[in-house]
Formats: sequence, C-alpha cells, structure tokens
Amino acid sequence: MSTLFIGVDVGGTNIKIGCFDGDLKLLEKVSVTTDVDMGPEVVVQRMGEAVRQLLKDLGYSLKDVRAAGIGTPGPADYKAGIIINSTNMPTFKNTPIRQMLSDELGCPVAFDNDANVACYGEFTVGAGKDVNDIVFFTLGTGIGCGIVSHGKLVQGATGNAAEVGHVIVQPGGEPCNCGQRGCVEAIASASHTARRAAEAVKAGETSSLSILPEITCKDVFEHMAQGDALATRIIDETARALGLVCVNMLHATDPARIVFAGGMIAAGDVLLQAIRRHFEAQIWTLRKETVEIVFASLGEDAGIFGAAALGRDA
Amino acid sequence: MSTLFIGVDVGGTNIKIGCFDGDLKLLEKVSVTTDVDMGPEVVVQRMGEAVRQLLKDLGYSLKDVRAAGIGTPGPADYKAGIIINSTNMPTFKNTPIRQMLSDELGCPVAFDNDANVACYGEFTVGAGKDVNDIVFFTLGTGIGCGIVSHGKLVQGATGNAAEVGHVIVQPGGEPCNCGQRGCVEAIASASHTARRAAEAVKAGETSSLSILPEITCKDVFEHMAQGDALATRIIDETARALGLVCVNMLHATDPARIVFAGGMIAAGDVLLQAIRRHFEAQIWTLRKETVEIVFASLGEDAGIFGAAALGRDA
Repeated sequence: MSTLFIGVDVGGTNIKIGCFDGDLKLLEKVSVTTDVDMGPEVVVQRMGEAVRQLLKDLGYSLKDVRAAGIGTPGPADYKAGIIINSTNMPTFKNTPIRQMLSDELGCPVAFDNDANVACYGEFTVGAGKDVNDIVFFTLGTGIGCGIVSHGKLVQGATGNAAEVGHVIVQPGGEPCNCGQRGCVEAIASASHTARRAAEAVKAGETSSLSILPEITCKDVFEHMAQGDALATRIIDETARALGLVCVNMLHATDPARIVFAGGMIAAGDVLLQAIRRHFEAQIWTLRKETVEIVFASLGEDAGIFGAAALGRDA
Repeated sequence: MSTLFIGVDVGGTNIKIGCFDGDLKLLEKVSVTTDVDMGPEVVVQRMGEAVRQLLKDLGYSLKDVRAAGIGTPGPADYKAGIIINSTNMPTFKNTPIRQMLSDELGCPVAFDNDANVACYGEFTVGAGKDVNDIVFFTLGTGIGCGIVSHGKLVQGATGNAAEVGHVIVQPGGEPCNCGQRGCVEAIASASHTARRAAEAVKAGETSSLSILPEITCKDVFEHMAQGDALATRIIDETARALGLVCVNMLHATDPARIVFAGGMIAAGDVLLQAIRRHFEAQIWTLRKETVEIVFASLGEDAGIFGAAALGRDA
C-alpha cells in the first residue's frame, strides 16, 4: 500500500522537497535549484527526478507515494491548479502545475500558494498543531499570510483569502506596491522596516545606522539592541502595526493562536514581546482575550510539511 | 416523519418565531414580547407556547418539528449553549438557553448570536444564497457581523469570530464602548453616524441639522439629500469607514459577496453607491476584484430564517 507523502515548496531560487510517512514524519529532504529560465516542463521534470532520487535513497519508489502537495508563489488559480503568472517565476504563465506534477509523479497533487502551504504546515505539525484556528504571518520582503478556521485553510471565493499583508492599518498612509495605502506589509515587512529606517537616516535623523552603506532589517534590530533611538522607534512602529493586525484578525476569525514566521523572527523575543505589548495596548477591554501570539516552529521546512499535509488531507 | 423547522430570533423587546418546511419556505411567523423581566424560565416557556400555537394554527404539532435554532444577543458561550450575560437581557445570566429550549420543544436546537444567525439566513435563502463565501454586516446601534467561508459560519476558537464591528479602521481614533479606539462601529454605525453629526452641530458647524432637538441617522441622510454640507461629510465618513472594512475583509476571507443589513440600509442606493465608491478608491490595483457589495434581502426575517437554517444544517 502506498504510504508516503511528498511535499514540494517552490521558491524563485530553490525547490525544497520532502518525503514523509503517514504521520507526517519527515524521512528525508532535498533542495534543488529552480532554474526557472528552463521553463515549466523542464522544472517539473527536474522535480520528478529529485523525488525519484529521494525515494530511491530511502529504498522506495514512486508507487509508494500516495499523494503530493506543492506550494508556489502567487498569484494562481488554486481551484483550477494553474499558476497564472508569478513575478518570481516569469516563465510560468498559465501553467497547469497541479496536473503537470500529478502526471510526473503518478499520484494526486494538492496545490496552494506558498504562504497558505507554510501556514498549513505550522497548523498540522508546528506551532499550531494542537488548536483548530490559527492566523499565520510570514515576515519577509512582503508579509504572507494563511488562515485556518475549523481546521481548514480559508481559501475564499477566488482562492485569494488570507492576503492579510494588505489589510490597511494606516488609512492614507505609506503607498504599497499593491496600489493601496497603509497596508501592514508596507510598514512592517522586513524590507519596509529597513526602508523606513533608511529614509529617516536620509532625511537627516541622528542614528548609529547612518554609518552603514545599506540598512537591513537585521541592522535595525541590532542598533536597537545597542540603544539607538531611531532604530527603537522604527521597530516600535513595526510592532505596533503587527499588533494592530492581530487585533483586527482576532475580531475577524477568532484564532486560538497567531503564529509569526519568516526571516524577521530571527530578531527573537524582543520582537515577540513588542508585538504582544502593542496587541494588549490596542485590544478591547470587553472581555479578556486568550489568543496566544507565538513564533513558528518549523523554520524553512514549514512549506514541505504543509505541502505534504495538504496532499494527505485533500 | 418530522419535517418542520423552527427559527427563534430573540431581541431585547420582541421574540420572532418562524415555522419553516424542509426547503426553508416560511409557512407562518409570529412575534411575542420578550418580557425579559420575568426571567429565563418564563421566557422560554412563552417561546414554547408561541411555537405550539403557531404549529396548531398550521395544523401541526411539536412532533412534526425536526429541529430548531435560536439567535440571541451576545456575549454567550455558543459551543456550550449558554448565554453568559447580555446587556439587552439582564435576567439571562449563565442561562443554558440551548438545552432549555430543546427541553421545551423536544427537539435538537442550534444556537448562535443574533448577527451570525441573520448572516446565515441571508447566506441560505437571502442575498448570499447562490455563493459559498460572504461577509455580512448589520448597521444599527452597533455593527453586527457574520462570516460564511466554504459554506459554513466562521465561529472561531472561542465562538467570537466575526466581531468585525470592532475592526480598527482609524488607529487612535474615536473611543468605542469596547475599550478600543477607531473601531468601524464607533464611526459608521447608525447611532455613531448620528452622534458625529450632533457633535459637529454642537461644535458650531453650520448645518440644516442644527434646528433639530435630536439628530438621528435618518435625519443625516435626509439632510444630505437636501444638500446640507455637514450631513454630506458625515455620511461620506461613514461610507469611507465601511468601504475600508470591506477592503480589509476582502483580504481576510475573500468573500464573493459583502452583504449590508440593518436599519441604516433604508437610506437606499445613496448609501450602497457610497460604500462601493469608497471600496473602489481604497482597494488594490494588483488585480481586478469581483466581490459584490449588496444589501440584504430578508429584512427583519433574516434572524428566523437563519435560526431555522442553522437548526436544519446542524
């Protein structure tokens, strides 16, 4: 009987692939370059080769695989299983990725966007594994999001639910790439946190950051740790926006847990405490809220776990 | 075979009761006073009497009822079936309403808050009947809300999902009764729309509203229709806040339709067009959104339809 599940997490640079047993125990994983220039047929063929090699190393073959899942950067038509276009993968246009991977592996394939897939990984075996309702944020260049309600990913009428990085937390505020103003992403993502610091330095604010040729989000956290006032204010604004989006999402889907992931959580407890503090300062007093605000636990593997879990649960 | 369903919609003043067939066709309805002072036992007994009379008038009896549903003002523990306390019904404290009504009627009873129940009514037979995902707002003294995702009410980890009246759309803005600032309810509910107009008049702004001893939301719409500048600005701010909460909820659960209900929609097309205009002005340009913003179609009956539907679908 086929008992294995494959999770595929596609990024612009690398494709991560994991092989799991029925309890979603990770048996082995591998990473291959995406080589997106070679086009979807070759990329999917290379995914297949990598999966077959991974299985062979474990003493299995494709006939032992019951289902697979794949997460890719959006936008896509997730119901139809088609990548419409992707800024990270320009050669993938109207690509029926779900069917192509299913043909390549000879098993059913589940498909969703990378943030939903990572969310489902954290929900299934990570920081949300013991609850039924979570909201998940990944803080990187942008802010990705996933929502699990009653144990299921909220996908929405068009498959575009959980674009919570574009919830407006500052009406009329900073322009976002998406065309809105004041999106939480345009304030509080890692890249926009760094951008706000750089702009303040350029505008002449005194800061230890001003000696740097280029400012990253990591730099801002480090200079805050050393007591720099500007860095402290920039991070406080980031945490305030994140605390506010937690308030708004609590009132929307009432999660038991809000999970933060992505590069920015390397900042550690200082970030988590700041988000919690700003949540507490902004949340209602009508009743005592019990939602937990925590960091993700699967790191870079959330995508392969989630993709395999989606394949298993589809 | 039992083929009927009963829907009970409890308000502070009246209890509405409807009797439905299996296709949720309304056979007959009745309204009785709540008489909340008499306490939960008497109130539930009177519900039972009204249901029995309603059935008798139709030529049926309680044994023809397969299930019932009841909606009440919050807050409650919906999973446990208990009204914890209710500002509108002060004698109902830790009242196991679901079990009490089930004992009274001799059938299974579903229970949720009044806004969720009305939402489910609109979803099942009203303005959302042909889609799977809606967000529902009722614009009255406060702003009630319900969310249906994948065809099911989103109830959340604690049963307190869809408190979207308390999504913050103006950080640091108007204080809300809930203890937050800038909630959409504190700006755009009927009573807060009237309050903002009254405060502006009191502050000395020139307006045709200034001759009124007391200003209602209806007055503000009427004076806007007659060209009053202050009334026009107040309604525009209301519509802007509602347009913004539509943007934020689109990015959260991606509804196919956003449905507005409640007393304020009597203002008609001028309100609906204003909400749509402010939605369009604030939504992203990343892709063309297809969500429809519409008015509810069941009016005051949404609660009994939704309660009966919840009973049927539980």
